[in-house]
Amino acid sequence: MNTFGNIFRLTSFGESHGAGIGGVLDGFPAGVEVDLDFLQNELDRRRPGQSHLTTARKEADRVELLSGVFEGRTTGTPIGFLVRNENQHSADYDNLRDVFRPSHADYTYIQKYGLRDHRGGGRSSARETIARVVAGAFAKMALRTRGISVYAYTSQVGPVALDADYTHYDPALIESNAVRCPDAAKADEMARLIAGVKERGDTVGGVITGVVTGCPAGLGDPVFGKLHARLGAAMLSINAVKGFEYGEGFAGAAGYGSEQNDRFCPDGKGGVTTLTNHSGGIQGGISNGQDIYFRVAFKPVATLLMEQQTVDTAGRPTSLTARGRHDACVLPRAVPVVEAMAATVILDALLQDRCVRW
Amino acid sequence: MNTFGNIFRLTSFGESHGAGIGGVLDGFPAGVEVDLDFLQNELDRRRPGQSHLTTARKEADRVELLSGVFEGRTTGTPIGFLVRNENQHSADYDNLRDVFRPSHADYTYIQKYGLRDHRGGGRSSARETIARVVAGAFAKMALRTRGISVYAYTSQVGPVALDADYTHYDPALIESNAVRCPDAAKADEMARLIAGVKERGDTVGGVITGVVTGCPAGLGDPVFGKLHARLGAAMLSINAVKGFEYGEGFAGAAGYGSEQNDRFCPDGKGGVTTLTNHSGGIQGGISNGQDIYFRVAFKPVATLLMEQQTVDTAGRPTSLTARGRHDACVLPRAVPVVEAMAATVILDALLQDRCVRW
Amino acid sequence: MNTFGNIFRLTSFGESHGAGIGGVLDGFPAGVEVDLDFLQNELDRRRPGQSHLTTARKEADRVELLSGVFEGRTTGTPIGFLVRNENQHSADYDNLRDVFRPSHADYTYIQKYGLRDHRGGGRSSARETIARVVAGAFAKMALRTRGISVYAYTSQVGPVALDADYTHYDPALIESNAVRCPDAAKADEMARLIAGVKERGDTVGGVITGVVTGCPAGLGDPVFGKLHARLGAAMLSINAVKGFEYGEGFAGAAGYGSEQNDRFCPDGKGGVTTLTNHSGGIQGGISNGQDIYFRVAFKPVATLLMEQQTVDTAGRPTSLTARGRHDACVLPRAVPVVEAMAATVILDALLQDRCVRW
Amino acid sequence: MNTFGNIFRLTSFGESHGAGIGGVLDGFPAGVEVDLDFLQNELDRRRPGQSHLTTARKEADRVELLSGVFEGRTTGTPIGFLVRNENQHSADYDNLRDVFRPSHADYTYIQKYGLRDHRGGGRSSARETIARVVAGAFAKMALRTRGISVYAYTSQVGPVALDADYTHYDPALIESNAVRCPDAAKADEMARLIAGVKERGDTVGGVITGVVTGCPAGLGDPVFGKLHARLGAAMLSINAVKGFEYGEGFAGAAGYGSEQNDRFCPDGKGGVTTLTNHSGGIQGGISNGQDIYFRVAFKPVATLLMEQQTVDTAGRPTSLTARGRHDACVLPRAVPVVEAMAATVILDALLQDRCVRW
Repeated sequence: MNTFGNIFRLTSFGESHGAGIGGVLDGFPAGVEVDLDFLQNELDRRRPGQSHLTTARKEADRVELLSGVFEGRTTGTPIGFLVRNENQHSADYDNLRDVFRPSHADYTYIQKYGLRDHRGGGRSSARETIARVVAGAFAKMALRTRGISVYAYTSQVGPVALDADYTHYDPALIESNAVRCPDAAKADEMARLIAGVKERGDTVGGVITGVVTGCPAGLGDPVFGKLHARLGAAMLSINAVKGFEYGEGFAGAAGYGSEQNDRFCPDGKGGVTTLTNHSGGIQGGISNGQDIYFRVAFKPVATLLMEQQTVDTAGRPTSLTARGRHDACVLPRAVPVVEAMAATVILDALLQDRCVRW
Repeated sequence: MNTFGNIFRLTSFGESHGAGIGGVLDGFPAGVEVDLDFLQNELDRRRPGQSHLTTARKEADRVELLSGVFEGRTTGTPIGFLVRNENQHSADYDNLRDVFRPSHADYTYIQKYGLRDHRGGGRSSARETIARVVAGAFAKMALRTRGISVYAYTSQVGPVALDADYTHYDPALIESNAVRCPDAAKADEMARLIAGVKERGDTVGGVITGVVTGCPAGLGDPVFGKLHARLGAAMLSINAVKGFEYGEGFAGAAGYGSEQNDRFCPDGKGGVTTLTNHSGGIQGGISNGQDIYFRVAFKPVATLLMEQQTVDTAGRPTSLTARGRHDACVLPRAVPVVEAMAATVILDALLQDRCVRW
Repeated sequence: MNTFGNIFRLTSFGESHGAGIGGVLDGFPAGVEVDLDFLQNELDRRRPGQSHLTTARKEADRVELLSGVFEGRTTGTPIGFLVRNENQHSADYDNLRDVFRPSHADYTYIQKYGLRDHRGGGRSSARETIARVVAGAFAKMALRTRGISVYAYTSQVGPVALDADYTHYDPALIESNAVRCPDAAKADEMARLIAGVKERGDTVGGVITGVVTGCPAGLGDPVFGKLHARLGAAMLSINAVKGFEYGEGFAGAAGYGSEQNDRFCPDGKGGVTTLTNHSGGIQGGISNGQDIYFRVAFKPVATLLMEQQTVDTAGRPTSLTARGRHDACVLPRAVPVVEAMAATVILDALLQDRCVRW
Repeated sequence: MNTFGNIFRLTSFGESHGAGIGGVLDGFPAGVEVDLDFLQNELDRRRPGQSHLTTARKEADRVELLSGVFEGRTTGTPIGFLVRNENQHSADYDNLRDVFRPSHADYTYIQKYGLRDHRGGGRSSARETIARVVAGAFAKMALRTRGISVYAYTSQVGPVALDADYTHYDPALIESNAVRCPDAAKADEMARLIAGVKERGDTVGGVITGVVTGCPAGLGDPVFGKLHARLGAAMLSINAVKGFEYGEGFAGAAGYGSEQNDRFCPDGKGGVTTLTNHSGGIQGGISNGQDIYFRVAFKPVATLLMEQQTVDTAGRPTSLTARGRHDACVLPRAVPVVEAMAATVILDALLQDRCVRW
């Protein structure tokens, strides 16, 4: 199942150590101006080797558009794209051919498919998310012409977490540090934590907060296509994600309706707004015009550069010390992926909403 | 979007105060014995009026199977079903025709569709979950013949939460109290909390924990049909759900790989198992044969039986005191819904997995 | 696979001798006025026992709408519906329990599902098409507000065929005879042929011609959702259909481009039209604004009321003389089914087309 | 809508004069041996310039597999592929930028999308079928290990048609001539017809017959996924196709049930067979184990190398003489495309059938 979306659909392919990562964008509307610099810049934000905090794998991650764009605009026909892999060190993975890395997908892929490409995790590698970033970049190009903006930031790394909600931070600061955290002091703390973790061959998890602003009321398709259910499915499909919540989320489960209900009031422009936004911009699965915000939990990366006990493919106990180039913390590079999936969902819901009223 | 699933698909219909709730189960395998008592019992677990803690709406919720079953077995053709609404008090909702309840779907439905059935929330009513419970009951009938079991329980109501993980509780105790909590003392505390909340016209949220045991390795379809992404989408589509996590979830985001990785070891029967299960039974989006466990956060019900400030459909400030029969806490009745959606996902993934190997 | 459509989707259920036939219409737009008389009239056109030419099974085929309509308009939520079976003579089919009717689905259903409901063909009965007619009636209600009209007629019964194309016949005459043929003389000839065939327990095939007028240019979604491919799939899914062609169809395969190309010319109103319409209103899979016309071939009904040699379920030779009430020719009753499927496809394509331009 | 299939899915992209044609095969089973020579040979059968009868465009049509294959076997992950365009003469199409070719998709694409790539028809070019041939080649690799074989041949070119049904021809002779007709004398007549048509700048249509042998009973998914409905949709989605029939097809519409029913009889091996095969191997939408055969009507190619009257994009009358390299008759090159789509449908139905029985 490598297709995502209903009207606007991404179908992706590619493995960590194959020819490359690519995909097809289908259902993307015709007539949108294509901003190639923006597209490449989004990929650069996801690219390995962009800072001392990330994996040292050197990939330019240059995207080639293969179809669907003519004289600078989308044509409504499918957009094929390809990013070649260039810096594979497949030999680094020879010792993984016959062994299962703990908490990695090595074991489950063999159980499911009967065989696997062991090099760099094959299809289970987060390198797959390149295709998501391409889809998201196109979605953003369309959404920004409607005043809809999507951003995300690192709000927690291991035990270091931001104290306040998204309204307290300036999104313009996100790209000002390698961690992609809009609080400079916390970002520094997070960076030092990651550096230490990397030093000892360990890994660390964290949380990314995502925000959609300018989203009109009416997006989302009950009962199974509720907007937050689609956002949740999108986020949970990203590598290493273990949880999703929106609005008050799990914290809200501890509270009372009298505290959490968002009262409606006139917006002063003839419309309606809410005094608070505990709902996270979605009620009954449909956007209400307020900001949509959500949080995504990432587990620590499974591949450690320290010795671990495990079994080989014959089920015999063995020990393993992974080689290769791995992130000690995926959060900084996952920020554009979270944004991309959110943008993809919002554009898809926006197109779908066009079919609702006669 | 009222269809859920890939191979095994539920398509549902119905409103709170229409003729009834029903649906179609398509892709359910042929030859499964249909246990009508079990099916009705699952609906009874979801039924209103089952205890003093729930809404007083009196509905027998008798299900009629309309097709797809012949001489006690499923035929592989679509299973139509219908539960008639019987105890509508539509007049209770006359005062909601022209007003938006805070944090309810009244406003967003009007924004999306241009008109709405205001009686009992129409399609946005949790009465819709009847169809899910029917789908889940069929899924369970199939899964239990393969030794796969799905259960859920209330693990938190407002501030009252269980301290330990699911392995510490006996699922046989879940149905022993009205809250559906396997810890008798905590259940009692939760029940008293709900009674107090109900008394003052307020509502309260909580958390349901779900568990799948006996699930074989290999279920789940990367990259967009990862097993946990489908479980998450399923749970997030249930009314009032605000968050989903599996395995260590958000707590795990604070930790390190060296702590959280699940080491593989021989299982003593020629196979492989893991020493711990921080992963929650899923690695790389595919089940690994361990227990799958997850948590689902529910917000407090939006409809309060106390006065609230809001606006009317013309955008003018007004106050509202809802009438009608509402749950002060949906958790006890949502337990079978969580189970149903989990069973639906697992059966669907099991069928889909049959197509993977040549 | 009992769901049809992309945006506007029919999911159907039901067997010939079960509780009834029903379904769910999802994605139907909100705000459309529901004309219940029209809906019932469409079902009456498909109803058994409507004339001496059709099966004698007595069914009122009253439809009950179960959801999705409020105060006379569609709400955008799923429309559940049910038509109860009333006049089953299941005992007529006792002798079919253990025998395979030649060219019927008895054998293939057993091969596929391992068991079958032998009464009246179960799910393979054309009684299933009730659900299609309901979907089509709703589609027509929407389409007529846009000036789009769909009609069909019997253009051939056995060897008796109309000589001219659809432009030579007045659609207002279709309902003036029991055969649903707009040429009175030919209709009479067809009726006599059917009566003779029925008399001797035999059956006869034929062709239905379908026409869509007022369809705007732009509908259809290359490359796999071409408008004619969707019309073809729709028609071929109707019981007993063996062929589909549009425009010049098979006859055009014998000809030359210089004869068959439709020259463009100004339409005198600032737009473009074509001098001829060999294309059948579709070019490259997209409607061009001209009439869409197509032909659908039906085989003779498989169930004969005469003795036939066959085998029983154990594979032993036997002979069979079917009882029960069967049509000697399905064409007259299939006309509204062809219209319904065409209307369903056109509405679906119309909604989908809303998503194409930014 | 550039995705085809349910379990085994092709998503394609690419235009005639863009970077190339490619796609993604998803849901293809794991563990199938990949025969690269066979794959390239299938493309060579579709390749332009293969004989004097076809377009002179010179394309090697070398396919690059980008993912999903490891050490000679499929891995169950998506198979990305790309065929680069090499021999574009885009300038040949400069005169088409502002004019609509009669009966081509120029006009409808503009009507739908608002803009179009005019070079070589853009996405509407039959060059798109490269992706189908790749999908079909993979499907055939899987099917042949199960004894299922798919072949097709040219059975009519303009007025020159084969007299007998498929059982009278030896499929081994199909590739023995440039027309792909298994009757040498007729092939010669067809070739001469095409040469003459080409000489005068005209084009001619025809019919391709397709056959599936070795297909087990049980494939096809009523009521909307009937096997022949899926075959029909597949064929009708191919460029220039105007009709599809299977079994007796339109000819059978003229006949009687007593003549056309296929009597069941013992097959002498403990199973069941039929004495005749008027049904075309499918009853009730499900294969019955007999040969599946069908016919596909192709219109004459729309692009003529002679002067035609038409309008420009402003709606003004003009005349047009196309340049470029075009087939005078697509039938010979469409044979592998018909086979490919049939193989794709059969594999998809075979996989889907695995989910039916419990």
